[in-house]
Amino acid sequence: MYDIIIIGGGPAGYLAAERAGHGGLNTLLIEKRALGGVCLNEGCIPSKSLLNSAKVFDYASHGAKYGVSAENVKIDQSFVIDRKNKVVKQLVSGIKMQMKQNHVQVVEGFGEITGRVDSGFAVKVGDTVYEGRQLLICTGSEAAVPPIPGLKEGLESGFVMTNREILDLREIPDTLAVIGGGVIGLEMASYFNSVGSKVTVIEMLDKIAGPTDREISAILQKNYEKKGVEFRLGCRVTEVKADGVTFEENGEIKTVPASKVLLSIGRRAVTKGIGLETIGVYTERGAIKTDEFGRTNVAGVWATGDVNGTSMLAHTAYRESEVAVNNILGKKDIMRYSAIPAVIYTNPEVACIGETLDSAKAKGIDAEEVNLTMKYSGRYVAENEGGDGICKIVFNKKYKTIIGAHIIGGYASEIIYGVGTFIETQMRIDDIKQLVFPHPSVCEIIREGIFQINV
Amino acid sequence: MYDIIIIGGGPAGYLAAERAGHGGLNTLLIEKRALGGVCLNEGCIPSKSLLNSAKVFDYASHGAKYGVSAENVKIDQSFVIDRKNKVVKQLVSGIKMQMKQNHVQVVEGFGEITGRVDSGFAVKVGDTVYEGRQLLICTGSEAAVPPIPGLKEGLESGFVMTNREILDLREIPDTLAVIGGGVIGLEMASYFNSVGSKVTVIEMLDKIAGPTDREISAILQKNYEKKGVEFRLGCRVTEVKADGVTFEENGEIKTVPASKVLLSIGRRAVTKGIGLETIGVYTERGAIKTDEFGRTNVAGVWATGDVNGTSMLAHTAYRESEVAVNNILGKKDIMRYSAIPAVIYTNPEVACIGETLDSAKAKGIDAEEVNLTMKYSGRYVAENEGGDGICKIVFNKKYKTIIGAHIIGGYASEIIYGVGTFIETQMRIDDIKQLVFPHPSVCEIIREGIFQINV
Repeated sequence: MYDIIIIGGGPAGYLAAERAGHGGLNTLLIEKRALGGVCLNEGCIPSKSLLNSAKVFDYASHGAKYGVSAENVKIDQSFVIDRKNKVVKQLVSGIKMQMKQNHVQVVEGFGEITGRVDSGFAVKVGDTVYEGRQLLICTGSEAAVPPIPGLKEGLESGFVMTNREILDLREIPDTLAVIGGGVIGLEMASYFNSVGSKVTVIEMLDKIAGPTDREISAILQKNYEKKGVEFRLGCRVTEVKADGVTFEENGEIKTVPASKVLLSIGRRAVTKGIGLETIGVYTERGAIKTDEFGRTNVAGVWATGDVNGTSMLAHTAYRESEVAVNNILGKKDIMRYSAIPAVIYTNPEVACIGETLDSAKAKGIDAEEVNLTMKYSGRYVAENEGGDGICKIVFNKKYKTIIGAHIIGGYASEIIYGVGTFIETQMRIDDIKQLVFPHPSVCEIIREGIFQINV
Repeated sequence: MYDIIIIGGGPAGYLAAERAGHGGLNTLLIEKRALGGVCLNEGCIPSKSLLNSAKVFDYASHGAKYGVSAENVKIDQSFVIDRKNKVVKQLVSGIKMQMKQNHVQVVEGFGEITGRVDSGFAVKVGDTVYEGRQLLICTGSEAAVPPIPGLKEGLESGFVMTNREILDLREIPDTLAVIGGGVIGLEMASYFNSVGSKVTVIEMLDKIAGPTDREISAILQKNYEKKGVEFRLGCRVTEVKADGVTFEENGEIKTVPASKVLLSIGRRAVTKGIGLETIGVYTERGAIKTDEFGRTNVAGVWATGDVNGTSMLAHTAYRESEVAVNNILGKKDIMRYSAIPAVIYTNPEVACIGETLDSAKAKGIDAEEVNLTMKYSGRYVAENEGGDGICKIVFNKKYKTIIGAHIIGGYASEIIYGVGTFIETQMRIDDIKQLVFPHPSVCEIIREGIFQINV
């Protein structure tokens, strides 16, 4: 009898296991495919490894504006994939070590809940049944596959890929059609555009990058249009053919030819086939419904990470798992979603946190924003010839606090967390003004923005 | 009669002028050479422009470990200097615009205090005398020139350069001897090593990078030794010859040949020849003595930035000027030095803030540190093949707060400010644990470090 059984070894699961083990719980972690989950094996980390190679390739190819020239610049796609695999392997073994250090028992295999037992729950892996007093479900999410004619066949033949397959692609396709202009679609469009594919992004909405601030989405789109990516916005895909993708644009049916297709329209929680019904866990629109402590409707059963359908980000999963484990350990903690960063690792990068002006106003907050060019940062000017980045800071006029920030430009991914601190601690703007930012730096743009606020 | 006369248009001066003008003061700013001062014209910004080109050149030259190959990689030094000048020009005009927007009167020329007048002070520029009710001295610093035989002649002939001349060097010297292994010396060693010079750094102390944490200094040195930079530590320069630098190493006299020499042993406050004695401003070891509000010993006379000899960093100057102007405007504010970041823009970058374990213990603080490899960050692993960076976090065991952080690795410069917030606001470690950092990012190393603290 384990104190806790965790199903799923992605960010939600392994983090929970580490903290539970550290907290003295007798912990079992079950993972069906690879420790680290989608994020580490088929998502965040592999894509960053690829994008780093693309960055190096871009610098080598387009260094002229900084005084650097090079000939015969090439990228070895197969090498890039091999290196990515090495990076993943190294990080997976890091997680394995963490599990060991925290006395977590790890079982490989598909975990299926089979029902209640005396003072707990039973989970079957192969022929073995494990019992745990509490259950934490971290089964994550998978690529959503809509009922588009030809899509299933395309996925089977390998013509259509999801995030999983594209990160193992060893040839650079001549033409790549990306269905869905969200984070995954854009990062892969960025990579394959850099390394030579002709990329077309087809998006149902009238803008890319999902809920990202509209002005920033537009700047990102413009940057990629300049680099040769084609965007078909407000377009519904109607069919996947053997050599292209057909879509409807303003009532007209058009086809974009493609040697490969990436399906990236979104992700859905994995809640089917894991035996939730055997213990009566409630789901809503395919995701497990949880409260702000990570509790499901069944006492002793918790769920964190993508499977709750809330945020679908690895770092949200981390925090949700911490909150759940803290509560399991009897330590007060509660999940808040007001300062969760969201990053798109394109070039330029996009990083956002908290409210946009629109979302704040929709909530009735007396909000305003400052909107400034990144050129206020000397380092940005020095490092970004022709850069058109911006930084928006959204503030609450009544309480004189920061409630959001939205940045497009280099280093955005690395500087956004500081604004998270301002939001989370509800620091007064006057106090933020007393902080010292290093000069010259791109993060100074935040300081500059703060000083442009007049409250 | 101006409300305030500011002497010196560097970071301390232009920031003070902007804030004073914004606050409604009738403000005069006097600059003898170029608005922006050393930082913008001959320091922080020009060096970052050069270092960015070196980064591009390094990526193009050494991309193989990321799967990128290129032939005949070249850097056009003259282009790099031209671009740097463009960057500086753009930023200087930005400051000019800020001055205009805040109704600051700018006068070009050498400002010399000539004495007291009715309810204020007189400052002469050329033939014109200006009068101000208050005086803010921001004359900054200049390269220290020690009495080493041959040095003066070398400076006159152009064989020896300071930060000023080296940033305009249009040919890459075959061999470069750097006297002084502090920030300026290391950044320039980094640049010229990247672009092809054989660089030797001669340092009097037994370590590079001045007050930087000793372990981090050693890692930085090791990185540059691998790249071919030679370090002569614990060596005193005895003579500058026509074609090299002579120094004493363990009692032996040696010579390193050099086609150019950089003198970067430190900077000293500029307090001579500006008429301080006419109004009796007190100096100590060549710097103006000020209190925590920026006040000198003379009522109505303030001094901020390098001229007070305290920190010699542009961002310290900014904050000191804000404090001084706030106090002039009757707004309570006070200067604190506990959370001032310090960055070395080498590759890898170094960023430090607050106490080291040693400095904390010397102050009698019950301190401890966690010391972790940057490889805990997935993004770091993805982007730094063979990287050996570390992150140290120093904490106060009694109060359970963070009091320092010391990082060597990519993005260090951009992530350190967040730790500054933790230090400045004295956030409890338990509260910091609740912050959400984006995944994957290098800044997550801070989160990881925080979670390794056991208090």
